[in-house]
Amino acid sequence: MSKGRVCLAYSGGLDTSTILVWLIQEGYEVIAFLADVGQVEDFAAVEKKALQLGAKAFVCENLQRELVDEVVKRAIQCNAVFESRYLLGTALARPVIARSQVRVAEKHGCQYSNGSVSHGCTGKGNDQIRFELAFHALNPNIEVIAPWRLPAFIERFKGRNDLLKFAAENGIPVSSTPKAPWSMDENLVHISYEAGILEDPETTPPKELWLRTIDPRDAANEPVEFSIHFDKGVISKVVVGDKEITDSVESFKALNKIGSEAGVGRIDIVENRFIGLKSRGCYETPGLTLALAAHLDLEGLVMDSRVREIRDQFVSLNWSRQLYNGMYFSPEREFIDNSIEFSQRNVSGVVRLAAYKGNVTILGRSSDSSNLYSQEDASMDSLEGFSPMDTSGFIAIQAMRLKKYGEQKRKDGAPLSQS
Amino acid sequence: MSKGRVCLAYSGGLDTSTILVWLIQEGYEVIAFLADVGQVEDFAAVEKKALQLGAKAFVCENLQRELVDEVVKRAIQCNAVFESRYLLGTALARPVIARSQVRVAEKHGCQYSNGSVSHGCTGKGNDQIRFELAFHALNPNIEVIAPWRLPAFIERFKGRNDLLKFAAENGIPVSSTPKAPWSMDENLVHISYEAGILEDPETTPPKELWLRTIDPRDAANEPVEFSIHFDKGVISKVVVGDKEITDSVESFKALNKIGSEAGVGRIDIVENRFIGLKSRGCYETPGLTLALAAHLDLEGLVMDSRVREIRDQFVSLNWSRQLYNGMYFSPEREFIDNSIEFSQRNVSGVVRLAAYKGNVTILGRSSDSSNLYSQEDASMDSLEGFSPMDTSGFIAIQAMRLKKYGEQKRKDGAPLSQS
Amino acid sequence: MSKGRVCLAYSGGLDTSTILVWLIQEGYEVIAFLADVGQVEDFAAVEKKALQLGAKAFVCENLQRELVDEVVKRAIQCNAVFESRYLLGTALARPVIARSQVRVAEKHGCQYSNGSVSHGCTGKGNDQIRFELAFHALNPNIEVIAPWRLPAFIERFKGRNDLLKFAAENGIPVSSTPKAPWSMDENLVHISYEAGILEDPETTPPKELWLRTIDPRDAANEPVEFSIHFDKGVISKVVVGDKEITDSVESFKALNKIGSEAGVGRIDIVENRFIGLKSRGCYETPGLTLALAAHLDLEGLVMDSRVREIRDQFVSLNWSRQLYNGMYFSPEREFIDNSIEFSQRNVSGVVRLAAYKGNVTILGRSSDSSNLYSQEDASMDSLEGFSPMDTSGFIAIQAMRLKKYGEQKRKDGAPLSQS
Amino acid sequence: MSKGRVCLAYSGGLDTSTILVWLIQEGYEVIAFLADVGQVEDFAAVEKKALQLGAKAFVCENLQRELVDEVVKRAIQCNAVFESRYLLGTALARPVIARSQVRVAEKHGCQYSNGSVSHGCTGKGNDQIRFELAFHALNPNIEVIAPWRLPAFIERFKGRNDLLKFAAENGIPVSSTPKAPWSMDENLVHISYEAGILEDPETTPPKELWLRTIDPRDAANEPVEFSIHFDKGVISKVVVGDKEITDSVESFKALNKIGSEAGVGRIDIVENRFIGLKSRGCYETPGLTLALAAHLDLEGLVMDSRVREIRDQFVSLNWSRQLYNGMYFSPEREFIDNSIEFSQRNVSGVVRLAAYKGNVTILGRSSDSSNLYSQEDASMDSLEGFSPMDTSGFIAIQAMRLKKYGEQKRKDGAPLSQS
Repeated sequence: MSKGRVCLAYSGGLDTSTILVWLIQEGYEVIAFLADVGQVEDFAAVEKKALQLGAKAFVCENLQRELVDEVVKRAIQCNAVFESRYLLGTALARPVIARSQVRVAEKHGCQYSNGSVSHGCTGKGNDQIRFELAFHALNPNIEVIAPWRLPAFIERFKGRNDLLKFAAENGIPVSSTPKAPWSMDENLVHISYEAGILEDPETTPPKELWLRTIDPRDAANEPVEFSIHFDKGVISKVVVGDKEITDSVESFKALNKIGSEAGVGRIDIVENRFIGLKSRGCYETPGLTLALAAHLDLEGLVMDSRVREIRDQFVSLNWSRQLYNGMYFSPEREFIDNSIEFSQRNVSGVVRLAAYKGNVTILGRSSDSSNLYSQEDASMDSLEGFSPMDTSGFIAIQAMRLKKYGEQKRKDGAPLSQS
Repeated sequence: MSKGRVCLAYSGGLDTSTILVWLIQEGYEVIAFLADVGQVEDFAAVEKKALQLGAKAFVCENLQRELVDEVVKRAIQCNAVFESRYLLGTALARPVIARSQVRVAEKHGCQYSNGSVSHGCTGKGNDQIRFELAFHALNPNIEVIAPWRLPAFIERFKGRNDLLKFAAENGIPVSSTPKAPWSMDENLVHISYEAGILEDPETTPPKELWLRTIDPRDAANEPVEFSIHFDKGVISKVVVGDKEITDSVESFKALNKIGSEAGVGRIDIVENRFIGLKSRGCYETPGLTLALAAHLDLEGLVMDSRVREIRDQFVSLNWSRQLYNGMYFSPEREFIDNSIEFSQRNVSGVVRLAAYKGNVTILGRSSDSSNLYSQEDASMDSLEGFSPMDTSGFIAIQAMRLKKYGEQKRKDGAPLSQS
Repeated sequence: MSKGRVCLAYSGGLDTSTILVWLIQEGYEVIAFLADVGQVEDFAAVEKKALQLGAKAFVCENLQRELVDEVVKRAIQCNAVFESRYLLGTALARPVIARSQVRVAEKHGCQYSNGSVSHGCTGKGNDQIRFELAFHALNPNIEVIAPWRLPAFIERFKGRNDLLKFAAENGIPVSSTPKAPWSMDENLVHISYEAGILEDPETTPPKELWLRTIDPRDAANEPVEFSIHFDKGVISKVVVGDKEITDSVESFKALNKIGSEAGVGRIDIVENRFIGLKSRGCYETPGLTLALAAHLDLEGLVMDSRVREIRDQFVSLNWSRQLYNGMYFSPEREFIDNSIEFSQRNVSGVVRLAAYKGNVTILGRSSDSSNLYSQEDASMDSLEGFSPMDTSGFIAIQAMRLKKYGEQKRKDGAPLSQS
Repeated sequence: MSKGRVCLAYSGGLDTSTILVWLIQEGYEVIAFLADVGQVEDFAAVEKKALQLGAKAFVCENLQRELVDEVVKRAIQCNAVFESRYLLGTALARPVIARSQVRVAEKHGCQYSNGSVSHGCTGKGNDQIRFELAFHALNPNIEVIAPWRLPAFIERFKGRNDLLKFAAENGIPVSSTPKAPWSMDENLVHISYEAGILEDPETTPPKELWLRTIDPRDAANEPVEFSIHFDKGVISKVVVGDKEITDSVESFKALNKIGSEAGVGRIDIVENRFIGLKSRGCYETPGLTLALAAHLDLEGLVMDSRVREIRDQFVSLNWSRQLYNGMYFSPEREFIDNSIEFSQRNVSGVVRLAAYKGNVTILGRSSDSSNLYSQEDASMDSLEGFSPMDTSGFIAIQAMRLKKYGEQKRKDGAPLSQS
């Protein structure tokens, strides 16, 4: 008798193929689910394999537009970055994948009694948390089967050899390509590399690791110039050469192509996972790196300084952390999102850039949406509408508090003028 | 009869030469002061010109070590950056220059009754504020003569032509080199370019503008590899090729050279001045760009995640803004400094890097000072000392609040699973 | 010939009467403006005096509803408090007064050439800044005449005796009531007392100073019970005894009455003015004290903990400071306001309170708008829907980082278990 | 054969008596531990009961001084408050209790193999987390036995009746006093009440619930005046009537007595537990309420405004949350502590207060440690050392940005002057 139906996030790889077969052996019916978030993948082959291994059905959803229009959009609008460097490539895709998987589970009757959704994430990583927190918010009654955290499963599959043995015993096809000595995650935004040889933070990633971007040393010897148009902080057009791309997904892909060919967007960091472990990751994020550079630049031209200061300190840092920690479907993300949107009302304009061998350079920027930058105001040569004597008063008032500070230091025998 | 003695920050240029002569004509005795903060300068020529124009004395102080050991050190320790991009090159030097000028003024009897210190900063910029707030804290009784904010002076000198006319009438030598169509500020940390043709934010800076860094396109075709050693967040050694540099100033210069030759550290931004105007600046900061990349990387390896989160949000943003706004000699900077130092107790180790045509790449990092990174802990393959079942509990507890959020959304007719 | 028309904020007191006459003597036409923000005032007498002294017109606008519905509303919604104690009574009224004065100035042709708006605020206080920053945002072309910052005026009127002499010479009626040895500001929200004998921070305010609240020792011996209903963070009803008040202004007045009679809402503090001086103020704010206590309590019941944490740290502190510093009409206040409103979507419910001799006590609270509080969930006796074993996992994961911290301390010879 | 030795936090109540006997039945040797943190307790009776039930030893440590000198001190220095109202009474005591228990466990050989420390906290509360996170940091090898989260234990003891039955069967004496319909926690700082009838947030706590403070209605009809002296933010003396108390513990007890007799320090709130549940708590904290009021007041007089602003936003909020969440022994608490201490260098002086029927009133304050408050500077009547014209410049510069904001609004058809 079936224990119920489970919607399994299925990649076609050894881990999730094992889980698929194991779930069936445990008495579940399995719906195999695969999200198309822009990764390079032979979707038909994955489908064939899933069905061959006994899945009741295979469902693949194209989520590229949701990813770009809902999540990447906000990342750009708030200049999202985690721990000063990581552009959140994996974390951005998790919410749309989880939501789609819950939709598929609900549609295919994978509900509640025992079975519901399952995934192959390991027990030490961020992704299990991102998926599961999303699942629970999306459907508060859901049940999650996380084999890599089930004693019975991890007792049985203690290493890759156990998986290979199980595969051989159960007719699970295993790729003949040798496994790379690291693991990868890929979507429209980035490819991440971690684990394996990368666990030694001293090991420089080998040249062949990087799949999405050309090595800057091999990139073209001439810069590529292009421009990005923004409307309220959202990319509305990318212009490169004589091409104008306005569709959001296509625009993002165009930026990916420019960045990829110019070797832009590689980073190599040690970061702090939500569960309190440090881990080392290498990431390549060509298009988003370009988009963020342009957006940040445009905000310099059009955003009020004090709004920006508050936004930087509380909106950008919080949103980035929320995404990293899997708190996308949360009241606090919704709260912060509301601020992001409001902050972008005047962020419209055009930024011209060049990409060259790993670099992004701003060539110029313009906007009609804001009166904050004024050449005349900024000009050191013009005093139109400006009385320099006002600055004397401004300084005098600011100095009142500082004079007291200096006096106190003198009184305390530690004058500030001593070096 | 003399109105008193004034210590004038004197650069040898047309503006401060005019001010020097004007101050004498107004009845002051002038001590000309020049800070050596690492700029390229013919110091002897400036001295000769000052004395020739009537200065009572000329004093030049080498402040490079103070700059590096007191201020640049802290900037690196807290990953200082203003508005996400500006590395504060000019702002870092102002405190040590102001302090030196006050010391010189005090030593040379430029005190209080009317005369004291003077400078040639314009009335719209940040530097007047940075200098003067420092002056007032350093010596709460000081008087500041800021000619570009004095009605009598600005009425008389309405443009460059008035200055040239005054120079001709008063025997002030004027350089025959045509003035660049922008203004510059230079020190050990950076060169800044602003004003003139740069006031149009659409104008790409011409190739010849950049003086400190080679154009990435003209830089060497091979990366330069080097390493930076840190002790409690402070650079203790730079190793490049077979050279090991341990002196702080020489280490910084070595980084400048590497960055300069590889075309690293150019930015072009629109920023928000303290007085509320936006302005466009181009900056090249080769060495500090490298130092910051290395320091940030090392912190990933050794700093506790939650300390880092608090530090990023409060310490780094506040310190950067304090420096930008001229609040170096302030109780709040002292308060923040105390946190910076404490945060760096474990930030010791080595980072290996490469510089190549505008890029900085991290090659690897190591540290003996912290137990926070552990290959075994991080490893996805090892469960030593880790029970994945704990993560299930962690997720379940985190999900309690989110389930309620999801339930409320369903009740409100806006289930989160809808896209 | 007239220099132009000026709209003067006129209170009928000695200072603004002197200014009124002085402005006329200086060649201006004066429109006297008085805002009714709920203060106790003989409005007819002020009008009569203004016209008698030569004002071209007298305009009084009742701004009580604007004050409550626009500004006090937000203060309650975000639990506004400055420096942990001051409820911003004066600061809340300034924006609506300034806006009304600008409207009156515009309507009565007080525009631009020389004349526009004028006020009697002194040069050291916060109010001059609050009014003038509002004026400039409300009408960027406005001109402000601030006599207490004009050299000619302050030279002439060096103390109260000069004002009295001018009054005698110019037929300005002077109240025979002796002036209190402090100054006051009054509106619907509070009365403030400062200056004079209060400038000594050791001086306890005399019993007769407090005008709006009964001394707790003289207040009724029985508590008054009442309830406040909130709809999205806004007071929708006040119930006291058998009275139900739903009008916003009347509700606020009812709270004032309850608080006033129970001696609730007195504070005595030293605060930091925007211009950098410390000053001592005594404030009594009966109704708002009650409203804030109730609102804060209700948020405990219905607001998500993490939204609250972010809101407390960024929204409440920033809004309060913005109001204190006169930045109501600013992009940053608008930005923060947007967050406040969003944060209050579920803040609906009823809080029952008691007021007694200076105290506010919460008697109970309830809400239908949120599912966050659940007696069953909270109950220590019920494990329905809760697995205590999950907490073990939660703790184990949280402890990973702390164990490393403890290990490092032991290694460093400073074990945490030493006291 | 013994499973090992366990140090059990033992209160003498039904729960921990049951656990004591159960642990012995499970094969452990039990060291009973009781902390004296200032609660009212018959310590000899608890000891007798523990030994009678089979404990190998009973250890009671007096931790009052550690509590006051290490933790309460910091709470006062940073004005600690959780969610705007809770003064953290329970949370402050947990770190010293946990540290003492670990010391006792180590000294009595309760180490590692199976046995170590145990407690009777329930699985939904904050205290289990506070104790255990502390245990793990204090001794990273420790093992914790938390019976209320062990399936075997909670299966067996499903309610109070099971405990009573077990007591009867095992000779555990049960108090004949009927159990109060809520639970309590008591220490030098406060008594907390929660659970039972308090789980309904509409239920007003009955008069007899409050044990530490007199009902304000029954308190004395005359205020008690007293003063608190601070040295660097630490209470150095309490003066009441003709008594001067300088010992830190005695000073705190003196404040408790004053507050208790005047009915000061009761609150009733709904708060957010760390694990994501809301819970309702009633707390009475007489002495700390007085101490915090005095400390906050003194800071107004002596602390720089900008230091205070940063401190309020990042130090106070973070420290309070760290304590609430059990993160006392953590790198981030240590990081924040370092800032607290630095911030208090000038916080020395005397505050005079009165306590009366639930109220704390500030009567006056003075300090010799800071030059920040100056009667002359603050005085509205004195212009000594102050030029009001400077304020004009200050306002003009601040207004530049706001004028642009107003202009943009006009251009957008939404002038700010519209109400």
